[in-house]
Amino acid sequence: MRINENYLNLRDNYLFSDIAKKISRYAADNPEKKVIRLGIGDVTRPLVPTVTDALHHAVSEMGDEFTFRGYGEERGYAFLRKAVCGYYGKKGVMLNEDEVFISDGAKSDLWNILDILSTCNTVLIPDPVYPVYVDTNIMAGRKIIYMAGNTDNAFLPLPDRSVKADIIYICSPNNPSGAVYSESQLENWVEYALENDAIILFDSAYEIFVRDNSLPTSIYQIDRAKECAIEFCSLSKTAGFTGTRCGYTIVPDRLIRNGTPLGRLWLRRQTTKFNGVPYIIQRGAESVFTDAGLEQIKANIDYYLNNAGVISKTLTELNIWFTGGKNSPYIWLKCPGNMSSWDFFDFLLEKASVAGTPGAGFGVNGEGFFRLTAFGSKEDTVEAMDRIGRLICNEKG
Amino acid sequence: MRINENYLNLRDNYLFSDIAKKISRYAADNPEKKVIRLGIGDVTRPLVPTVTDALHHAVSEMGDEFTFRGYGEERGYAFLRKAVCGYYGKKGVMLNEDEVFISDGAKSDLWNILDILSTCNTVLIPDPVYPVYVDTNIMAGRKIIYMAGNTDNAFLPLPDRSVKADIIYICSPNNPSGAVYSESQLENWVEYALENDAIILFDSAYEIFVRDNSLPTSIYQIDRAKECAIEFCSLSKTAGFTGTRCGYTIVPDRLIRNGTPLGRLWLRRQTTKFNGVPYIIQRGAESVFTDAGLEQIKANIDYYLNNAGVISKTLTELNIWFTGGKNSPYIWLKCPGNMSSWDFFDFLLEKASVAGTPGAGFGVNGEGFFRLTAFGSKEDTVEAMDRIGRLICNEKG
Repeated sequence: MRINENYLNLRDNYLFSDIAKKISRYAADNPEKKVIRLGIGDVTRPLVPTVTDALHHAVSEMGDEFTFRGYGEERGYAFLRKAVCGYYGKKGVMLNEDEVFISDGAKSDLWNILDILSTCNTVLIPDPVYPVYVDTNIMAGRKIIYMAGNTDNAFLPLPDRSVKADIIYICSPNNPSGAVYSESQLENWVEYALENDAIILFDSAYEIFVRDNSLPTSIYQIDRAKECAIEFCSLSKTAGFTGTRCGYTIVPDRLIRNGTPLGRLWLRRQTTKFNGVPYIIQRGAESVFTDAGLEQIKANIDYYLNNAGVISKTLTELNIWFTGGKNSPYIWLKCPGNMSSWDFFDFLLEKASVAGTPGAGFGVNGEGFFRLTAFGSKEDTVEAMDRIGRLICNEKG
Repeated sequence: MRINENYLNLRDNYLFSDIAKKISRYAADNPEKKVIRLGIGDVTRPLVPTVTDALHHAVSEMGDEFTFRGYGEERGYAFLRKAVCGYYGKKGVMLNEDEVFISDGAKSDLWNILDILSTCNTVLIPDPVYPVYVDTNIMAGRKIIYMAGNTDNAFLPLPDRSVKADIIYICSPNNPSGAVYSESQLENWVEYALENDAIILFDSAYEIFVRDNSLPTSIYQIDRAKECAIEFCSLSKTAGFTGTRCGYTIVPDRLIRNGTPLGRLWLRRQTTKFNGVPYIIQRGAESVFTDAGLEQIKANIDYYLNNAGVISKTLTELNIWFTGGKNSPYIWLKCPGNMSSWDFFDFLLEKASVAGTPGAGFGVNGEGFFRLTAFGSKEDTVEAMDRIGRLICNEKG
């Protein structure tokens, strides 16, 4: 028996455990200091009442022999697929319910989708990037080409026509940079994909944070994207579902390669390898898309965006270059004084008791950058930015 | 962009849709007849009160900012892994909590596990079999060798030393045959796996139905199995979780191949490609393993086993050869009068308004056999077997 030796090509990723160790050591050495974590990529606001009501109701149904549910529909329940279509309708994107597949989150399906695509395909991935895109393709032995994000392109790389690729990863609003592609930039990507017979895997996990109406929140707002893109979204950040687990994947009917509708392959994959998301959770997810649900989650998103505003304001005052901070929960900043990512991490932790995430952990182009997130409490965010403001002013002064 | 062309090697599987179509047509043509479905592979008893109480409690926790949970532990929550270890302890199997990985069901992980194993491995699969084992390996392009189940081996094939294989699928109690391997038979398989440096993927999804204490309910009850086996189980049939989705996968520390502990690869896979089972569901699953939970689910299993007994009794009286029917929710019978699987299906439907599952749908060795299940209601099961009994007596007479 042989293991999948591609796994041995993975870089050990100790980013978050290294961060945790450093914070623990610092906290142990400085028991009087309150460490504020602005590196957290997880939500902190609880589920909204509309969702918990729906979950309770579904739990009760499952305890009653007359309303009990066993195996669900292979694509996910029609009630939830319909709710997702309604949500897209408001964006001006018309989907039919069979193009929607309910998932247990974007991360799972961003890997699962690779199963229906040949390992011979060449993959184009931005750098810095959410490490899952890279690692899943290394595990499958695919050839990866990186496209550099940097201050010149504001971490929104555009197609290089001299590069041929088959599978293109785009995340907008981006993790880690918080940058958001404009309509014309995404048009550029769709054209490139069509020219190359490529497909775009579009990760829209942070779409709910976009408040600027001129910015796309779905790749399907771009003409002809249904011929070349699969979209992955999740309620993790939308509705605080990181621990509740529900998302959706859109495979348009018009997406055909090798004469085969990818939706048909994907349905076969789902039927053979997945038994769906819990009925209870699908009912909770459905309630997110009601008027009451959307209004309640808006209050949580407002809360996080307010934190992002607090962070952005301080960085602007300090003349620190950054992306994100609006239309996104992430703020991606250039480390002041040309510090390296880890030097700035140590500096902030030791001098301000604030923890963030070193940009180098997201790829070679992340070196010299640093990620802060808006998922903390308002009080902690204000306190942390006050400390950072004073620290950097003092260093300059 | 190229699709994964292995998908094109899949046989279209219309088994359950063909069955559904035939039943619909029959019901439309015979509106006065009540069709009883004994082909159902899904549970029908609701979740027990201990589980719904735990689910309600967890939903409330998720709505409160002080008890809200975001991303969970990568292996699954420690509280649930500990509960699983406790359950195995009662079987005489000592596991440590890091050998237990919480899944959204056995089906998902039976595929996911293949990701850490080379596609060059040769796979040994019984026939008839749960179609997922076959289809997932066709999708990955692995070479498959089948081992025949038949009346000579009572659908419990044993190793053929002249065959070399790397990955061996064993399901006991078996789906579809309901047959259960004895301790000495599983010892034979463990010896074969060790001799061949192979691994066994042991599907114990139906272990809760085993009431004969001499029969193993875990592969780890066999000496040295921890050196060669991964076990997959699910609460789907155990606790009626087919629509609630929770299971567990055991990767023993002692399971090492190519110098690499498979548990380490598996953890890396899970960390990169999965974000866990909902916190709410994990709390529900934990409650299954409490004394109250186990007592309540026992009542449901008793209910299904009683149905299995009703079916077995009739078949015995009719002198029809079958496996299963005890220690299993499945009954696998030889079609009377040497009928083919589909002829018997049509015969039962047309003459007794009873629907089952043609054995041919589970592999070439299933031809001439038929599966009945114990998951219907008691009343329907009694009525169906009464009809079948009278029908076959009349045919003989």
